[in-house]
Amino acid sequence: MAEKVPFEQKVLSENDRIAAEIRGALNQRKIFSFNMVSSPGSGKTSLLEKTISAIGSQVNIAVIAGDVQTENDAQRLLRAGCKLVRPIVTGGACHLDANMVSRALKELELENTDLLVIENVGNLVCPSSYDLGEDMKIVVMSTTEGDDKPLKYPAMFRRSSVMVVNKIDLLGTSDFDLEMVKANALKVNGTLTIIETSCRTGAGLDQWYAWLQEQIAHKKQKS
Amino acid sequence: MAEKVPFEQKVLSENDRIAAEIRGALNQRKIFSFNMVSSPGSGKTSLLEKTISAIGSQVNIAVIAGDVQTENDAQRLLRAGCKLVRPIVTGGACHLDANMVSRALKELELENTDLLVIENVGNLVCPSSYDLGEDMKIVVMSTTEGDDKPLKYPAMFRRSSVMVVNKIDLLGTSDFDLEMVKANALKVNGTLTIIETSCRTGAGLDQWYAWLQEQIAHKKQKS
Repeated sequence: MAEKVPFEQKVLSENDRIAAEIRGALNQRKIFSFNMVSSPGSGKTSLLEKTISAIGSQVNIAVIAGDVQTENDAQRLLRAGCKLVRPIVTGGACHLDANMVSRALKELELENTDLLVIENVGNLVCPSSYDLGEDMKIVVMSTTEGDDKPLKYPAMFRRSSVMVVNKIDLLGTSDFDLEMVKANALKVNGTLTIIETSCRTGAGLDQWYAWLQEQIAHKKQKS
Repeated sequence: MAEKVPFEQKVLSENDRIAAEIRGALNQRKIFSFNMVSSPGSGKTSLLEKTISAIGSQVNIAVIAGDVQTENDAQRLLRAGCKLVRPIVTGGACHLDANMVSRALKELELENTDLLVIENVGNLVCPSSYDLGEDMKIVVMSTTEGDDKPLKYPAMFRRSSVMVVNKIDLLGTSDFDLEMVKANALKVNGTLTIIETSCRTGAGLDQWYAWLQEQIAHKKQKS
């Protein structure tokens, strides 16, 4: 399969070209953006629902919600009060690419947006290879997934700037070791910011909101 | 990207040719085999550890354990007492393919094997497209992942013969609705066999072992 590498390179370089355009447009508008990646079921949408309810009146949030099938997540975010939500149903594709995001952005009115969230397909492998023009990737993992995940899926943790450890209310219901997951994550990426949350009890959410608002403010100050 | 479809078709048809060879070899030896697929962290390896401890003295089990990085799962299975374990570290690839399995099988002594388990990379999307020569796919999902997963990742549930709902000891710690996940799974695939398990409390494991032994016996009787 000699053509495989060149073909993949061609796809990725076209992706990077479009991602650079997106990044330029978001920078011009001073919109802070992150690409939210995780396993299926880590709680990305729940974390966004909480975030929209808590800070959505102070911060204008737009979300692009990617899924293989269904618009369930987009519907949940609309119900949570997010006014700018655009679903992308990939129809089988295992990741979002910059072209999908670019098309979705054309249909979003970003005039007053402060924060753009790109909720990727639940998959710890493929989305790590695709730059979507975001400021950073944030990987969400839950305490029920096993504390060796950063070692088993290193590319995703290496390319993320933040790891949210979600469902900390379930600590103690399995062998998951919180200190071990942090050590494993930092072994793969020593500069990761780590935030612990529970959407059920609310633990850690204030820290998450504060961190997010700091990033948004920081982006606004950039010339 | 006009060459995309033909290139993918070429890869898949080469995969299917090798998968057919594997299937022929396993059928000749009357080895029952399944391809175990799931999200990362659903508990595939825990379920295999339990299975090896419980029925490994009556049934000769071989496991091919796929992972993007690390041989952690293979090590765990060896410690559980499985004598035939072959790790595949895909080094970034998001799924196993028939060629990887074919190479791993050459290094396994299958003479007296009754059951071959192929533990796939944790990913609910890509592994659904690759036939590995197995008798059936078994999809494992855990109660912490959300009850709409069969609708969001329909290909995987459509191509599986069995859905194991694992971690049922954690029912009640989230909004996960067991009846809803079953209804959603059967909507996608009306012929799915559904088995509920907890590796922590042991609930449902006897049913899982009995089902497995029935498949193994059935395969032995085939002419």
